[in-house]
Amino acid sequence: MLTQGKLREFEPIFYPRSVAVVGASKDVRKAGAKYLRTIQLAHFPGRVYPVNPSRSEILGLKAYPNVASIPDEVDNVIITVPPSLILDVLDDCAVKKVKVVQIFTAGFSEGQDEEGHRLEEKIIKKAHDGGFRVIGPNCIGACCLASKLPYGWATPVEEGGSISFISQSGGYGGSLFELSRSRGMRFSKIISYGNGCDLDSTDFLEYFGVDPETRIIVAYLEGVQDGQRFFRVMRQVSSKKPLIIWKGGQTGVGSQVADSHTGALAGRGVVWAAALKQAGAIEVGSFEELADTALAFQDMWRPGGSRMGIITGFMGAGGGLCVAAADACIAAGLEVPPLAEETRKRLEALLPAGGSILRNPVDITPAGFSLDVLETLGRVLSIMEADPGTDVIMLILRVELVILNISEEDVFQPNRLLIEFARSGRKPLVVVSPVPPSTGEQLALERQLSEAQIAVYPTLQRAARAISNVTRYWERIEGEADSG
Amino acid sequence: MLTQGKLREFEPIFYPRSVAVVGASKDVRKAGAKYLRTIQLAHFPGRVYPVNPSRSEILGLKAYPNVASIPDEVDNVIITVPPSLILDVLDDCAVKKVKVVQIFTAGFSEGQDEEGHRLEEKIIKKAHDGGFRVIGPNCIGACCLASKLPYGWATPVEEGGSISFISQSGGYGGSLFELSRSRGMRFSKIISYGNGCDLDSTDFLEYFGVDPETRIIVAYLEGVQDGQRFFRVMRQVSSKKPLIIWKGGQTGVGSQVADSHTGALAGRGVVWAAALKQAGAIEVGSFEELADTALAFQDMWRPGGSRMGIITGFMGAGGGLCVAAADACIAAGLEVPPLAEETRKRLEALLPAGGSILRNPVDITPAGFSLDVLETLGRVLSIMEADPGTDVIMLILRVELVILNISEEDVFQPNRLLIEFARSGRKPLVVVSPVPPSTGEQLALERQLSEAQIAVYPTLQRAARAISNVTRYWERIEGEADSG
Repeated sequence: MLTQGKLREFEPIFYPRSVAVVGASKDVRKAGAKYLRTIQLAHFPGRVYPVNPSRSEILGLKAYPNVASIPDEVDNVIITVPPSLILDVLDDCAVKKVKVVQIFTAGFSEGQDEEGHRLEEKIIKKAHDGGFRVIGPNCIGACCLASKLPYGWATPVEEGGSISFISQSGGYGGSLFELSRSRGMRFSKIISYGNGCDLDSTDFLEYFGVDPETRIIVAYLEGVQDGQRFFRVMRQVSSKKPLIIWKGGQTGVGSQVADSHTGALAGRGVVWAAALKQAGAIEVGSFEELADTALAFQDMWRPGGSRMGIITGFMGAGGGLCVAAADACIAAGLEVPPLAEETRKRLEALLPAGGSILRNPVDITPAGFSLDVLETLGRVLSIMEADPGTDVIMLILRVELVILNISEEDVFQPNRLLIEFARSGRKPLVVVSPVPPSTGEQLALERQLSEAQIAVYPTLQRAARAISNVTRYWERIEGEADSG
Repeated sequence: MLTQGKLREFEPIFYPRSVAVVGASKDVRKAGAKYLRTIQLAHFPGRVYPVNPSRSEILGLKAYPNVASIPDEVDNVIITVPPSLILDVLDDCAVKKVKVVQIFTAGFSEGQDEEGHRLEEKIIKKAHDGGFRVIGPNCIGACCLASKLPYGWATPVEEGGSISFISQSGGYGGSLFELSRSRGMRFSKIISYGNGCDLDSTDFLEYFGVDPETRIIVAYLEGVQDGQRFFRVMRQVSSKKPLIIWKGGQTGVGSQVADSHTGALAGRGVVWAAALKQAGAIEVGSFEELADTALAFQDMWRPGGSRMGIITGFMGAGGGLCVAAADACIAAGLEVPPLAEETRKRLEALLPAGGSILRNPVDITPAGFSLDVLETLGRVLSIMEADPGTDVIMLILRVELVILNISEEDVFQPNRLLIEFARSGRKPLVVVSPVPPSTGEQLALERQLSEAQIAVYPTLQRAARAISNVTRYWERIEGEADSG
């Protein structure tokens, strides 16, 4: 019952039947024009109403002088006009009985002057009296892949997924969204709520906790309004879904900047860390770790444990990577156990003795530097997976060596092998691509793996950290199940 | 005198007049063929002799049945034949009075079996008796940009520079070399010395210490043979040139793997850390930090201090990045001081009040989302540079927003502004590109900046860490100058 109520309450935000853009125009340098154009680009199937008093038509759509004059029901109003015009727009929204407004405009409680604070107070009062909810101000607003509601004016992507992101920063909402293109991250929803004067992180956390399309929740927070309520909701949600939180403003300077950014009372890093841990959230220390961890959950979900089986040296250059991979995994709290006697024997029968490292990590460099090695790689993957002591298979892949050593028509063949292995395999496969791509072709090789939902990491440390965050989450869940 | 001797001693390694490749063939899957082909690709100007008893010609060059039968002098011999044939080849090298051999072949002291260890002992003896030096075995060998000696079979690059890399791992030598393509890293020399049975890290460190073309020395080490000598040389060298060292095999498992890789007695991480610090080397914890730090030295050399002036929000999305940039810099030991009153006034006059963050970092998001902002960016860069409290200017640039918001023909204009600023500016400019490129066009934007010798970092943390390594180096040098 509670769940149904929460889902219904948030429907106009993420699944609106109609959207109005106040401040829409043809001037593509302006936010209003950008929102409108992107909603069209995304093929949003609902009704769309540009609002602009001096235009009768914008981008092929009939324009209205104000929200009140729109003839049909309006679920969701995106507002991009200057602060001085906001209150009048909200009056119209009340008349029209809209369900939710999201205010892109900045210049409120995040600023230094009193006027902005007072204006934000008035927004809250108008929302309360008018019976609608407010997202923002100073935000990008809501994005939902299933309803084709785009994220601001980021170029839309088609493919949705199970990750939902609560972001106090509009910019970081967009940065993470971009990873749907480069790293195969698949989103259900993104919400950038800015100053959070009405709907706040806690509200969205509650919603994502019950939203059936959301399996993995990530959040970028600078501060929260009601710490006790937030803590309670975190605790409920994190027992059901992985909840990954990055707290911005950890240092003294950073927290002062956070105050200028979203007006958040940032709170001290150490207090946050303790609260997050107690509530069962996964605290991460950077945007990259946030993204990496979400990707690890998406592509691995629940590995059997934290014992890594590591393979390097495909197309050469494996030895140093073996040392570094072992160091990185151990430092992140993962295990790199010795291989079973049987596994070692099978590898010895397959690989040349000189130069091969047949402990764990395994270095297959001496197998050679051509497409001939592909079959060897396939067999090594299977042998490592069959080892009773491994839970996750990590392959270190230097894409520039693949391109250097394989003819153009065969260059995607290693990918095909890996995708086949990942699909049919019983243990998750993670790829580390430690040399940054310098050509479009190298990028394309990485992206094909990402799009096939094999997590690809740019450094050993980042891969190890992300996998460790996943395995520790499941250890905690198991511990709670045992003790409960 | 000592310097001249050392330079002359290493001339045949890095500036050979002639090279023989033993095990050269037409089979491009084999190392010998790859070495030979790449030496040709690089337009190595010296004489090149393929050695193969069953061919009279390879890749258009006359081939010889053995080294002894080559009619002219041979400085440098690259050996790729199996271990069982090595000793005979060395006998020929002694007859021919070659100066140095580099043995690519693996299967010696890094393996488990006694035979490999014994064979390596015999190599050392033959070198001593025959009057030549040995690099390897189990290595890629020497690369020198000025003499057009390529790095193994990595695709050659034209442009050389001032970074030299000592790598116990052949693979990491290649990984760093690849960054000449993607990150504008400019090398003088790279040496992969593998098991280091004769010439070891210390020898190359000594050489790079006096080599006039080397300004910045980086090293990847798994262990050293003679710790005391290494420490002494480190100390000498690090007082003259930045010496960046990454020690692989820091964890228990990692150090066991290092033993299997190059037979190195790895030593404990904590002892290493203390020794490196005492010797004035800059210890780094990963391949990425090693590369990032070398790049920071290359592109900034000596900033006035560690006070950052940070700019975000060009083309939008600056607020969260301001918070995170401040956190990352402070956490890395850099300063992010408040701006001078005068600077703040100048920024206030330039930027819209609503949504702009005008402390430090500065968020220029509200200036707009089009090419119009370019002039504003130029002025903000100058204002931040003129602030008496900044030493390094950091710009956070989301290249995908540049491409989204600027028409195709103008997309390189922001780069032109930045390159102009970096060339004429009095304070170094560092760029952070925090959203990984997902298209060739985005890569091209990043690379243009890198090639213009503006250091571009993929994350805030990595940029901050690299800059901090540079500023702490110069603080130490200043401290020594004061106390000396």
